[in-house]
Amino acid sequence: MRAILIREFGGPEVLRIAEEPEAELSPNSVKIAVRYAGVNRADILQRAGFYPAPPGVHPMIPGLEYAGTVVAIGSAVTRFAPGDRVCGLVGGGAYAEEVVAHECEVARVPSGVSDEAAGAVPEVFVTAYDALVVRGGLSPGDTVLIHAAGSGVGTAAIQIAKLFGAFVIATSRTEDKLQRCKELGADAAFCVHNAAFEKQVLEVTSGRGADITLELAGGAYVAEDVRAAAQLGRIVIVGLTAGARTEVDLRLVLSKRLSLVGTVLRSRPLAEKFQAAQMLEKNILPLVEKGRLVPVVDKTFAFADAAAAHEYVASNASFGKVLLDVARSL
Amino acid sequence: MRAILIREFGGPEVLRIAEEPEAELSPNSVKIAVRYAGVNRADILQRAGFYPAPPGVHPMIPGLEYAGTVVAIGSAVTRFAPGDRVCGLVGGGAYAEEVVAHECEVARVPSGVSDEAAGAVPEVFVTAYDALVVRGGLSPGDTVLIHAAGSGVGTAAIQIAKLFGAFVIATSRTEDKLQRCKELGADAAFCVHNAAFEKQVLEVTSGRGADITLELAGGAYVAEDVRAAAQLGRIVIVGLTAGARTEVDLRLVLSKRLSLVGTVLRSRPLAEKFQAAQMLEKNILPLVEKGRLVPVVDKTFAFADAAAAHEYVASNASFGKVLLDVARSL
Repeated sequence: MRAILIREFGGPEVLRIAEEPEAELSPNSVKIAVRYAGVNRADILQRAGFYPAPPGVHPMIPGLEYAGTVVAIGSAVTRFAPGDRVCGLVGGGAYAEEVVAHECEVARVPSGVSDEAAGAVPEVFVTAYDALVVRGGLSPGDTVLIHAAGSGVGTAAIQIAKLFGAFVIATSRTEDKLQRCKELGADAAFCVHNAAFEKQVLEVTSGRGADITLELAGGAYVAEDVRAAAQLGRIVIVGLTAGARTEVDLRLVLSKRLSLVGTVLRSRPLAEKFQAAQMLEKNILPLVEKGRLVPVVDKTFAFADAAAAHEYVASNASFGKVLLDVARSL
Repeated sequence: MRAILIREFGGPEVLRIAEEPEAELSPNSVKIAVRYAGVNRADILQRAGFYPAPPGVHPMIPGLEYAGTVVAIGSAVTRFAPGDRVCGLVGGGAYAEEVVAHECEVARVPSGVSDEAAGAVPEVFVTAYDALVVRGGLSPGDTVLIHAAGSGVGTAAIQIAKLFGAFVIATSRTEDKLQRCKELGADAAFCVHNAAFEKQVLEVTSGRGADITLELAGGAYVAEDVRAAAQLGRIVIVGLTAGARTEVDLRLVLSKRLSLVGTVLRSRPLAEKFQAAQMLEKNILPLVEKGRLVPVVDKTFAFADAAAAHEYVASNASFGKVLLDVARSL
């Protein structure tokens, strides 16, 4: 099978199409012909050598999510048959014509959802749903502060929060993304410079602050999240693009009784990956089919253009998801 | 009524017995003749001017907990009658012959629990139960790391954690307190210097780390708690005697998917104080009566010796609770 290979750790130019051996099919796994693979910031870190693949995963084929069609099943598989349309998360290797996954890690795609839409769902909607609902305890009436709201996870989070009847505050460093966040449902949206947003958050919440903060930047943002949080606020940290260290005022953490919650999808044990697949199949994809959650696809690149896709994601110009079309060569 | 008054903010010498007007009884409140009042570190902070009483509470009479007997009830009170033995938490004012509290903030004391034992229960057992069980999600089999384990909250936390079948690691800065922590049920106990304990915690947990950490010190301890935590660990912060600021490694918070949870009892809204009273009455006091939870009373001071009691608590020499006996003058 053909795959996008990291020839050696480095810039986008190290990505090349290569012929790779097919992955083995174990009794409980299914083989999927990939149609779309999502491009994530984690792929860029992996390519640069900063985010190694977990054990048991091809270390040099990036790709954490896919949508496609089942082409073969292991002898013990009960949930799927060849021809089934599916999507899901994997620990790596989705930039390829085929991936093999445990049947319980795979989610069925409803007939009303296109392959392209399905390809844009797993990573961002599971991350946002898990962060807001499972880890953050999202409830109707909550005020939800979403940073990097124009990112894939941000666009998913805005929609999930609105689905729960939350008041949504979106922030971005880019003015023109804010209007699009409002179109997705954000109630308030403002531009953030140097992690300064406490004033605006308190202003639009009559001084109450945010019940849940979805933190995609980290660094100095976290200290400001603490200042901008409401009593009993939950700050769920899923990304650290702005830095991995911060000094937090613990007095505020105590007096407001805040929770700072870290989360990450990739390194989870298998049992929790099953939960993620169930979340996809039961909580997310049916709402995508009904049009209540809309995957935002910014741009789809041909398979051979993986390097350009990486450059585009790294540029921060994208709004929503960037995909690779594995079936399209140019 | 007589009360211990803070004449002006300062050292222990500012505490004096004074005649104060009786508090008014509203329709839903009860008046309690206080027999024992607990002495807490927060009282010392309040006395020094660093921890003001919440609105509606006498600013100059310290005391956050009491045990005693109901002597009068408001016209709408249904839960209590004069003569009932009770204990509870208040926002302040317990260093007095009488306190008035909303009937839902008050817990009934079972007949098998003495006034002195009941006086040593509310603050430390509610704090420990709330932190470990409610906020920390304590489950059988968890490993629980308890700092300042010889403090009142520490001694309560050891017992609650053991009740849940947890593996308990106790730390203290004083060697002779550790043996007593083991007698209370701690499975491992070691002396901590300069907030360095990661190695020992990993050693006694075969490298797993702590599922729940009860953090009573704050400051640099929190950064080390993050290093010593297990996957999905919860670090519940209830005290900041070692400092209010710390730099946390967010990479570890994400990769281990930790929760840092701040909590404090005093400033809570009334509805949550009701929950605390229910916790006392339903979850804690029955187990005290059965002897499965044992309030640890280090020393009981006469009412007039409040200054000496403050000096003793501030010295860090105490193991467990320090009480004022309001009925004893010398």
